[in-house]
Amino acid sequence: MAFFLNAGAPALPALGAVGFYAQQAQGPLPAEVSSGTPPRTRRNTHGPGELRWPRGRGPCSGEAGSAAQAGRRQPDGSPKDAWDKSSSASRMALLETSKYSQGSVLGSVNPDLASERQTPSFSVEKLTVRLDGGAEHTRIRRAVVEAIECDPEFSRENQYFQSQNERYEAAVRKAVHLQKKMHEMGWTESGPEFKYIYRALSGDVAFLLHRIFMRSISVLGSDKQIAKWIPLATQFQLIGSYAQTELGHGTYLQGLETTAVFDITTQEFILNTPKISAMKWWPGDMGRSATHTVAFAQLYVHGKCYGVHPFIVQIRSLQDHSLCPGVTAGDIGPKMNFEHVDNGYLMLQNVRVPRENMLNKFCEVQPDGTYVRRGSQKINYFTMTTVRISLIEDEVIIPLMKACTIAIRYSVVRRQSKLKPGEQEAKILDYQTQQEKLLPPLAAAYAFHFLNDYLQELFDKGYREIQRKNFDTLPELHAFSSGFKAMVTQYCTSAVEICLRACGGHGYSLLSGLPSLYTKIVASCIYEGENTILLLQTARFLIKCFMAASAGQPVPPSVTYLAAVKPGKCPAKNKSDFLRPDIYTEAYQHMAVRLISSTAAKLQDLIQSGVKKHDAWNQCTVQLVQAAKAHCHYITVKNFAETVEKLETKAGIQKIMKHLCDLFALHGIFSNAGVFLHDGYISGAQMDMVTASYLDLLAVIRKDAVPLVDAFDFTDKSLNSALGSYDGQVYQRLYEWAQKSPTNKQTSPAYERYLKPLLHNTLSKL
Amino acid sequence: MAFFLNAGAPALPALGAVGFYAQQAQGPLPAEVSSGTPPRTRRNTHGPGELRWPRGRGPCSGEAGSAAQAGRRQPDGSPKDAWDKSSSASRMALLETSKYSQGSVLGSVNPDLASERQTPSFSVEKLTVRLDGGAEHTRIRRAVVEAIECDPEFSRENQYFQSQNERYEAAVRKAVHLQKKMHEMGWTESGPEFKYIYRALSGDVAFLLHRIFMRSISVLGSDKQIAKWIPLATQFQLIGSYAQTELGHGTYLQGLETTAVFDITTQEFILNTPKISAMKWWPGDMGRSATHTVAFAQLYVHGKCYGVHPFIVQIRSLQDHSLCPGVTAGDIGPKMNFEHVDNGYLMLQNVRVPRENMLNKFCEVQPDGTYVRRGSQKINYFTMTTVRISLIEDEVIIPLMKACTIAIRYSVVRRQSKLKPGEQEAKILDYQTQQEKLLPPLAAAYAFHFLNDYLQELFDKGYREIQRKNFDTLPELHAFSSGFKAMVTQYCTSAVEICLRACGGHGYSLLSGLPSLYTKIVASCIYEGENTILLLQTARFLIKCFMAASAGQPVPPSVTYLAAVKPGKCPAKNKSDFLRPDIYTEAYQHMAVRLISSTAAKLQDLIQSGVKKHDAWNQCTVQLVQAAKAHCHYITVKNFAETVEKLETKAGIQKIMKHLCDLFALHGIFSNAGVFLHDGYISGAQMDMVTASYLDLLAVIRKDAVPLVDAFDFTDKSLNSALGSYDGQVYQRLYEWAQKSPTNKQTSPAYERYLKPLLHNTLSKL
Repeated sequence: MAFFLNAGAPALPALGAVGFYAQQAQGPLPAEVSSGTPPRTRRNTHGPGELRWPRGRGPCSGEAGSAAQAGRRQPDGSPKDAWDKSSSASRMALLETSKYSQGSVLGSVNPDLASERQTPSFSVEKLTVRLDGGAEHTRIRRAVVEAIECDPEFSRENQYFQSQNERYEAAVRKAVHLQKKMHEMGWTESGPEFKYIYRALSGDVAFLLHRIFMRSISVLGSDKQIAKWIPLATQFQLIGSYAQTELGHGTYLQGLETTAVFDITTQEFILNTPKISAMKWWPGDMGRSATHTVAFAQLYVHGKCYGVHPFIVQIRSLQDHSLCPGVTAGDIGPKMNFEHVDNGYLMLQNVRVPRENMLNKFCEVQPDGTYVRRGSQKINYFTMTTVRISLIEDEVIIPLMKACTIAIRYSVVRRQSKLKPGEQEAKILDYQTQQEKLLPPLAAAYAFHFLNDYLQELFDKGYREIQRKNFDTLPELHAFSSGFKAMVTQYCTSAVEICLRACGGHGYSLLSGLPSLYTKIVASCIYEGENTILLLQTARFLIKCFMAASAGQPVPPSVTYLAAVKPGKCPAKNKSDFLRPDIYTEAYQHMAVRLISSTAAKLQDLIQSGVKKHDAWNQCTVQLVQAAKAHCHYITVKNFAETVEKLETKAGIQKIMKHLCDLFALHGIFSNAGVFLHDGYISGAQMDMVTASYLDLLAVIRKDAVPLVDAFDFTDKSLNSALGSYDGQVYQRLYEWAQKSPTNKQTSPAYERYLKPLLHNTLSKL
Repeated sequence: MAFFLNAGAPALPALGAVGFYAQQAQGPLPAEVSSGTPPRTRRNTHGPGELRWPRGRGPCSGEAGSAAQAGRRQPDGSPKDAWDKSSSASRMALLETSKYSQGSVLGSVNPDLASERQTPSFSVEKLTVRLDGGAEHTRIRRAVVEAIECDPEFSRENQYFQSQNERYEAAVRKAVHLQKKMHEMGWTESGPEFKYIYRALSGDVAFLLHRIFMRSISVLGSDKQIAKWIPLATQFQLIGSYAQTELGHGTYLQGLETTAVFDITTQEFILNTPKISAMKWWPGDMGRSATHTVAFAQLYVHGKCYGVHPFIVQIRSLQDHSLCPGVTAGDIGPKMNFEHVDNGYLMLQNVRVPRENMLNKFCEVQPDGTYVRRGSQKINYFTMTTVRISLIEDEVIIPLMKACTIAIRYSVVRRQSKLKPGEQEAKILDYQTQQEKLLPPLAAAYAFHFLNDYLQELFDKGYREIQRKNFDTLPELHAFSSGFKAMVTQYCTSAVEICLRACGGHGYSLLSGLPSLYTKIVASCIYEGENTILLLQTARFLIKCFMAASAGQPVPPSVTYLAAVKPGKCPAKNKSDFLRPDIYTEAYQHMAVRLISSTAAKLQDLIQSGVKKHDAWNQCTVQLVQAAKAHCHYITVKNFAETVEKLETKAGIQKIMKHLCDLFALHGIFSNAGVFLHDGYISGAQMDMVTASYLDLLAVIRKDAVPLVDAFDFTDKSLNSALGSYDGQVYQRLYEWAQKSPTNKQTSPAYERYLKPLLHNTLSKL
C-alpha cells in the first residue's frame, strides 16, 4: 500500500547522508545542572553561525517559565506560543500551593537525570556528529530544526487532544505554510536541508502523496507529460494523489480491478470501478484534498487486457473543489494513527481521460489502438525497492530512537520500590528486568542506524549501475530491501511496544508520546509490502542463490557465505569468548546457512515425493520466513561489527559501540536460542555463557544509557513527551499538559443531563 | 493500578460459571445461506422462551436493509436505530450504480464464508454450550445480550468516531440507563444475568469504580460503615471512586505519599498531597464524575506513621458538583483507550474528614489517638488476588476471542494472489503463514478459557477455606493469580496484535474493531500489577517451593512436580508421538523444573560467593521471569490436556479440542525451542518432528477455523467490526461505515482557508 510514503526522502544520490533531529551543546555543565541554574543559550565558538543550546531544548523550547526562556528567539520577538500561556496559568495554580512545586520548575533538570549525564564514557557530541554523518550535517540539521520549531505555525502542541478533522486541517495548514517557509529560508527540494524538514515536522504534514504523484510522473511519464504536469504540481496549481490500492487488493497488484477501456472514436480512456472491491481505498491526500490522482487500472484495448497501467485522472474541480462527474470520493474514516492524512476512497463511473493521460514512458496506446511497449520497466521495479529503503530511517528507526529516549529518561527519574532494604527507592533502570527491556532496543536502534547507512550505500551503488543500464544487481537489491524492511519494521514495532509498557501506566497516556509512536510504527509492518510477503520474496532469492551456490555457480556478494558451509561447532570456551565479534558473527552465519539449507532440502524432498511445486512452497513458507529473517539478522550483526571496527577509537565512541554491538548480537542469540542450539553448533553450556555475557553487558551499558539516548539529539518538541523531556520533570509536565485536555476545559453536559438527576434522585421513576 | 477494574465480576461464589456473548441457533441451513435467503428469527423448540436466530446476528442486528431485518423486534416496533437510516442512505448511493452491489446486500452471507460453515467436524452449538458452562447459562446470556443490544440507549454505533468527551458522556448515559434497565428486566446484582451485562455492553459504561468503592467499603469497612455508606452508594446518592495510585507510585503501595494526620482536638483526619508526585492519578470515575472516593494515605498519629490506610473523602458537592474546599481534581487527558473512563487526578490540601471515615474493620484510631489493629488483613490480600483472576475472562480472553473471530472470518473472505497458477485468487487463510499467525492464537483462546475455569474453581475452593479461617492456600493462590495474570495478558496482547496485522491495511482501520481491542488489552499488561513484577512474585514462590521440595519438605499441590525431577530424555520416536499429551506435558514439566532449579542454583551460587541477597536476586531476575513463565505455561498445557480428556466424545467436540490442545502445546515448543533443546531433553531431530507435527496441525485445524470462532457466539454488535461480521460482507460494510465518519459529514474549513487560496494562487505572495 502506498498510502503514506515519506515524501521527505530525497532523490537517490542524496540518500547516503543520515542525520538526526535536535539541538546540541557541550551539554550543561554538571554543576549548573545539579544546582538547578537555568541553562543558557550560548554561541558556539567552533563554527560560524552554529547555534548551541542545552541538548534537548531549543531556543524556543515552548514551555513558559522554563529557565531556557531567557535565550528564546521568536521570529517577531513576541510570546506567540499558546503553550506558554496555558502552561503558565496551570503552573500558577500549582505554585499557589508552594509545597507542590518542590523547586521542580520545568527546565531545571531533575537531579536523578542530571547525575546520569555527569560521567559518560564517551563524547556525546562526537557520537551525535557520527550519527549525523559529519559536523556539517549536524549543523544543517540543527538549523532546520530551529527554524521549524521556532515557527508557531508548525506547533504540535495540542496534537494529542485533536480530532481527526483537526489533525487534517493542521496538516494542510502546515503543508501550505511550508511553501512559504521554504521560500523564506531559501530551502529547495534538492538542497541539503530538505531531508530534515519532514523530520523536524515529525511527519505531521499534508501533501506527501502529492510528491508521490510527482515522482510517479517523473519516473513513468514521457518528457512531454513531465513538461506538462510537473510545473503545475510544483506550483500547486493542482494537488495530486496516487491511487493504487483498492478495497480488495493491496499486495497483489496484478489483481487490481479498476478498468480503463480505450475508446478509439474519442481517443479517450474510459475508467470504471466495476465492483465494490475495485474501489480505490487508502490513498493519502485523496479523501478531501486532491484534485488529481495517478490511478492504476487494467488497460483494455479492443477487448484485450494489457495489464495494470497508470492514468492521470482529475477528480475534483479546480474552481470549487466539487467532485468531477462520475467521481465518488471521500475519507475512509478513523485509523490507529495518521489522523492528519485524508486517506480516501474513489469510485469512477465512465470517467473519461484523453489518450495522453496514460503515463507512457514505457508503453503507449497509439491513436489506432496499437499497444506499444518500449524501454525497460526494470527501473520502475527499482523505484519500488528504493521506497522501502527510504522509509526505514524516518518512519521506523527514528521512532524507535524516540521511544528509547523517552523510556530510558523516564526510567532514571521514576523510582519505585527498594532494591536494597533501608535505602531510597531505586531508579527503575537499576532493575535488571528493566535493563533487559530497554537496552536491547537501544542497541538495536544503533544496529539499524548503521545497517541503514550500509543499505543506502548499496543502493547508491546500485543506482549508478542502473544508470549505466546494468541491471544485474536488481535481484539482490530487491531481496535486501524486502527482507530488511520486514525485519527492521517488525523489530522496531515490538521494541516501541516494549518501551511503552516499560513506562507502566504513564506510558499508556497519550501525553507520554509513546502510544502515537507505537500506532504509527505498527503501520510500517503493513504498508509498502506486507512483511510476511516481503520475507518470502527474500526467501525465494536465498533459495535460488543457495541452489546456485551448491551447484558451484556464482552468486551475488551478499550471499557468497551460502557456498562456504562449515559444519563444525562454536569454538567459544568461556563467556568472554562471546564478546568476540568473529565468534558470534560466525554463529549467526552458521545458523542462517543451516535454516536456508534445511528448508531448501525440505522443499526438494516434497517436490521429489510428488507434491506440486506451489503446494510444496506453501508447505515450507513458515520455515522460509524464518530463514529469511535469519539471513537479515546475520547481515545486521556482521555489518554492526564491521562498522565498530572502523570507528575512531578516540572519545570512547568505539568502546561503547562495541558494547552495544555485543549486546545486540548476544540478545539475538539469547532470545532465539533454539535455532543456535538445534544442531549443536552452540551447546547448552555455551548458551549459559552467552546468557552470562549478555546479562553482564546490561549492567555495563546501563551506566551510559542516558548519554546514549542524549546522543540521538532530539529536542523536547520533537519528542512531544511528558515523560521524555530533557529535564526529566515528568510529574510536573504530566500535570500541566493534562490541564490542556478538552475534558478539563469544556463543560460536560453529562452532569446536567445525567449525573445531577441521578444524584438528586429526579430521574424518571425507576 | 486499580484504574479500570471489571466491576461486573460477581462475588466469589458465583465465579465458577463462565460464558460468552451472543445469540445462538442451530446455524442457518447451508442452503439458506448460500442462496442468500434472509435468515429468520425462529422460536427454539427445545426450551421455553429460548430465542434462536442466526448465529452472529440478533433480532436487532442493527443494519438497515439487512435481510435479517424481517425478523427484527424493536421494543416499541419502531426503527429506532440511527445506524439504519444513514446506512440505508449510503447504500442507496451504491445501489444507484447497481453494478457495485454485486448482490452483496448486507445480511446475506458471503459465499466464501458460507462454504466454511458447511461441514464443521463438530457441533458448533454444543461447543458454545460447553464454553458457557451449560445450556442454562447460554440461555441467560442470550437473553441479556438481546435485551441490551435491542435497546438503542446502549448502542455502540458511532463509537469509533467519538471524541474522549463524547465517549465519556455516552458511558455515563449508559450507566444511568442501566439502572432503569435492570429494574425493568428484574435483573439484580446477585442474579445470574449480572455477569453478562458488562460483557454485552463491551465494557463501555461508567461507574465501574463506583463498584470498587462499594467493594472496598464492604471488605475494609466496619458494619457501621457498611450500614452508612452502602445504601447511599446503591441508591446513587453519591458516586464513588477508588483513589490509590499516585503520580509517583503505582506498584509499590508502601511508597504512597498522601498523608492523613489525626487531629485529636477535632477528631478528624487532615489529608494532604505533600508534593506533586503524591497527587492521585489514574483513578477511574474520578476526573469528572465522583462525589466521593476511598483515598489511600499514610496514617500519622502523634507524629508516628502507621502506614497506608483507606479514608472515605468527599471531593465534590452533592448539590452542585463543585469541588469541595481544598480539593483540586480533573481529568488526566487522552489515553490509548478507555476514553469512556474519566481517569482523574486529585490533590488534597488540608481536607478534613471525621475519624469515622477511616475504614476500620481491621484497624482503628481511637478518640485518644490509640492505634488498634484487629483481625486478619489476609482476607484483604486475598481480595487483591481475586481481582486479578476476575479480570482475565472479560478483559483479556474475550478480547482475544473477538480478535480471532474478526481475523479468521476476514481471512476466508479476503482473496489475494494465487496459490496455484491459473486458479482463482486464494483465500488468505489457505496460506500456511496466515494459518501460523491465526490458529495458535485461536488455540490459546481455548486454552486460556479452560485455564480460567480451573482458576475459578481453585479460587472458589480457596474462598471456602478462607471462610473457615484457613489461610494455608493463600501463598499458592497469590502465586497463581500473579503468574497467570501476567502470562495470559502478555500472550493475548501479542495475539491480538498479530490478528490486527494479519488483516493488513484494513486491520489498521478503526472500523475493523481490532485497533480498539489491541489498545484495550495492552493496558491489561500494566494494570492490577505490572506483569514483570507479578512474574517475580510467582518466581519467589517457586524458588521457595523448590528449596522446600529439595529439602524433602511438603509443598502445595500445584508444585509437587518440582520434587519429582527426572533427568532423562524425551522418548518421542516420530512426529506422531508429539501428538501424545503425556509426551508434551512431560516435556513442559521437565523444562519448567530445569529453569526453576538452574535459577535457584545460580541464586545460591551468587550468595555463597558473597553477593548480597538482594543484589543476587536482582541479578537473577531475567531468568526468574523466564522460570515463572515456564511454570505457568506448563500448568496451562497440562490443564488443557486434562480438560480434553474429560470432554464428551460425542459431537466431535473432544476431537477438535484435542487438535487445539496439541497445537497450543507444539506451538509453544516450536516457538520456545531453546529452552527445550538446552539440556538435550528434546534433540534437534525431535524438534524437527515437533515442527512437522505442528505444521500438519495447522492444515487440519484450518478446515474448522470458522466454526471454531463461530462457537464463541459473538453478535455482530458485540464485535462492532466491519471485517468480522457474520455475513462476511467486509468491503460493503467498510464503505458504508466510512460514510458515517465526521470527516465525511462536516464541511472542512481547510478548503476555504488553505486549499482554495493555494490552488487559486491567492496566498499572500510567496
